[in-house]
Amino acid sequence: MNATLFRSVLHISALCGLYLSAAMFVPAMADLYVGHPDWQVFAMSGILCGGIFTLAAVATSGPPPVFTRRFGFLLVNVMWTTFTIVGAIPFYLSSYDLTLAQAVFESVSGITTTGGTVLVGLDNLPPGLLLWRSLIVWLGGIGIVGLGLFILPDLRVGGLSFFKLESSDTSEKTFSRLASFTRAFMAIYFGITLACAIGYAWAGMSVFDAVNHAFTTVATGGYSTHDASFGYFQSLPLLWVATFFMTISSLPFSVMILLALRKRISVLRDPQILAFLGYLTVLSTLVGIHHHLTSDVEIGQALTHAFFNISSLLSTTGFASQDYTLWGPFAVTVAFFATFIGGCTGSTAGGIKAYRFVVLYGVVRAGLQRLIYPSSIAIVRYGRHTVEPEVQRSIFLFLALYMLLWALGAIALGALGYDVATALSGSITSLSNVGPGIGTIIGPAGNFSTISDPALNVMSALMLLGRLEVLTVLVLLVPVFWRD
Amino acid sequence: MNATLFRSVLHISALCGLYLSAAMFVPAMADLYVGHPDWQVFAMSGILCGGIFTLAAVATSGPPPVFTRRFGFLLVNVMWTTFTIVGAIPFYLSSYDLTLAQAVFESVSGITTTGGTVLVGLDNLPPGLLLWRSLIVWLGGIGIVGLGLFILPDLRVGGLSFFKLESSDTSEKTFSRLASFTRAFMAIYFGITLACAIGYAWAGMSVFDAVNHAFTTVATGGYSTHDASFGYFQSLPLLWVATFFMTISSLPFSVMILLALRKRISVLRDPQILAFLGYLTVLSTLVGIHHHLTSDVEIGQALTHAFFNISSLLSTTGFASQDYTLWGPFAVTVAFFATFIGGCTGSTAGGIKAYRFVVLYGVVRAGLQRLIYPSSIAIVRYGRHTVEPEVQRSIFLFLALYMLLWALGAIALGALGYDVATALSGSITSLSNVGPGIGTIIGPAGNFSTISDPALNVMSALMLLGRLEVLTVLVLLVPVFWRD
Ligand SMILES: [K+]
Ligand SMILES: [K+]
Repeated sequence: MNATLFRSVLHISALCGLYLSAAMFVPAMADLYVGHPDWQVFAMSGILCGGIFTLAAVATSGPPPVFTRRFGFLLVNVMWTTFTIVGAIPFYLSSYDLTLAQAVFESVSGITTTGGTVLVGLDNLPPGLLLWRSLIVWLGGIGIVGLGLFILPDLRVGGLSFFKLESSDTSEKTFSRLASFTRAFMAIYFGITLACAIGYAWAGMSVFDAVNHAFTTVATGGYSTHDASFGYFQSLPLLWVATFFMTISSLPFSVMILLALRKRISVLRDPQILAFLGYLTVLSTLVGIHHHLTSDVEIGQALTHAFFNISSLLSTTGFASQDYTLWGPFAVTVAFFATFIGGCTGSTAGGIKAYRFVVLYGVVRAGLQRLIYPSSIAIVRYGRHTVEPEVQRSIFLFLALYMLLWALGAIALGALGYDVATALSGSITSLSNVGPGIGTIIGPAGNFSTISDPALNVMSALMLLGRLEVLTVLVLLVPVFWRD
Repeated sequence: MNATLFRSVLHISALCGLYLSAAMFVPAMADLYVGHPDWQVFAMSGILCGGIFTLAAVATSGPPPVFTRRFGFLLVNVMWTTFTIVGAIPFYLSSYDLTLAQAVFESVSGITTTGGTVLVGLDNLPPGLLLWRSLIVWLGGIGIVGLGLFILPDLRVGGLSFFKLESSDTSEKTFSRLASFTRAFMAIYFGITLACAIGYAWAGMSVFDAVNHAFTTVATGGYSTHDASFGYFQSLPLLWVATFFMTISSLPFSVMILLALRKRISVLRDPQILAFLGYLTVLSTLVGIHHHLTSDVEIGQALTHAFFNISSLLSTTGFASQDYTLWGPFAVTVAFFATFIGGCTGSTAGGIKAYRFVVLYGVVRAGLQRLIYPSSIAIVRYGRHTVEPEVQRSIFLFLALYMLLWALGAIALGALGYDVATALSGSITSLSNVGPGIGTIIGPAGNFSTISDPALNVMSALMLLGRLEVLTVLVLLVPVFWRD
């Protein structure tokens, strides 16, 4: 590990921290506008962090190092640590009394676009704090799409090398393409957020609620401005608007970018899109019909709430329109397993993700066939691509570690005294960046306000691990990583 | 698919069915001895089944086919279906009033050495029924070891080709070696059963209890002759005797056979033995200490019960000495995950099994290293052997399908109205052939007597799928299997 590498990692992280610090002036202005004293917290934090990061950026400036895997891994970890710290400062200093573990949890939950919250009485919170929550989710969404599009494929983490944007070009062309990709992505991200906000306002939300929920919808973050989440609004059209935008936000941005830049509709034939929309439709319909048949709720309403809440789980957004854990054990078990699944790779969604399931399906198909014809060469395909054995191995590595972390997290939560439903679902809802779990404490009707500090720390670690695709963090634990 | 193949499959299955029918005369004699009318049920069933299978065996006799994979897969499925039917007949016809689904569940639970029971009032049951339960478990144990040693490795199911007994010899030598292996296995199986029975009798059990529990211990089956299982005896030394024999019975018989035949102590260096004893010791110690610290139970007693119940889960036996789900959430979450793990390959234990975890560890290690040095050739080892990519793939195929079946099973149980703890644990305890789950219904203090017929059918299917290493059954669903 050489000094240039560390210096450069700190430099880029400081620049990112600087951007995030600048965002603090948005909630500062909101609180100043309504006359809430928290505006000083945001303004002072912004000035302080801004100053520190400016100094740090200057002190660490210099020629950039060659991009190596070590550099990439270290950069991602230090960047997200920086985001966590900057995000937590206003929570910790605000008028809302939080422990350090709670402030860190709320920050991590935001920047990882998880959306589980330790705050209660959201309806009466000052606008600054609410805006800060929504903002770090929205910015966290940009961070995660950038990571998924530009960094993780180069690091070959979890079999994502497919999503590498043509790297065979010369480096200059690559750079100009990267710039045009970034512009296209930002335009699309802004565009969806704006469209979502307009949709929410049209369906009855106040402008403030519409903006906040649009931020956390497009980032599949799930923070709400009301304790009852979408249950507060009691509007079926609004649920469909949200369902539409949660689903859109779980589709790969890479595909949307290519669609915008190349105008070729064929890019929509990404198999993971079909898989995601497929399991979303099947599970929502089954839960809706089951709920209708086992209650006196009429079918339209049952399907609306089923589609909303199941999309919310599969897109890893985490909004809730009702306590669906009261719909009976079928809905609860589906909700539990939905928490593992997730959306598409290249979106803001978390979880195992549709792409990996598509490959897994191919591997299982090929494997069963080889049981009968052992000498048959069973090629696993992803659309028009062949999935190389190396990529298959990466996906299995990811899955094995994902399940291991889930189990260890759940056992840790059990050891800290939480019942089995809370432990099993709390671990996976953190790791998959969903938000709500099952059970009475952290279920859709609950929140994380009563969770003890040690348990919050476990969940914060799981959220970061899940958000950074597990391997990006765990690679730091391999001794050889630190050797020269 | 040709006729010779079907004929031969039916022939071998009929011979196996005949052996199992002959076993019915043991409970018949026991019931005749105490004067219970059920003796007629067993005698008549034995004569009837014996007659049918004799006819079937004669009608299907002929030259054996060449051993192909198709033949192997079909044989295993038809054999275990035969066992299920023969096992269920006495339950269905006995004085104990059972539905067909309950009788089938009890039979499957026995022959798969699972040990979950729909019978209550075991303490007052006639000896014939109790002996029949223990006998089918014990015979099921022989079946599963034979399957694991002689058939599955040839079918290359789930990465078990390692455990193939040297196949490079000429076929005549192989046959004589097979015969000496079989003799050695039967001697060891008898020997352990006898030693276990003597141990139980020494520690205070009646001869009848000692024999029954020895049968179900060595087969890691877990049927007891008392509703309270080992809780009935209230004896700490007895728990240690049981812990010892449950652990022994989870070790690979292949190793014990080699030890007996070749007298080389080095065969004990099978990495899965170390792994199994390692996680057994760590989990038991943690649960014991945690139980001691969070209650007023003294450390010796806490550790005794922890070792007994955790060994019972990891060996997939399923005995219980106490309702360990009352020891707090840590014990419950550990018990839940212990249900997935299982013992060693080549034993009567079920679950994912230590061997696969050893390989998984190697794959994870190699994968993390390749993240840093992508061009490094990371060889995965199992002891002195290299784990070929094909074997790694088989193991992943197994794991993926195992988790999928667990999820589908749990969702099915949820849809049938069972709470999330019962659904999640009921599915995996069936698939792993453990027996007890968590929750109030099927937890260690409960049983399967109140479970509805459809749910019992789901669990019976899961028990058979798990016992036959999943792939052996699922391969029948591949259309190409049935094509010529
Ligand atoms: K979320
Ligand atoms: K068992």
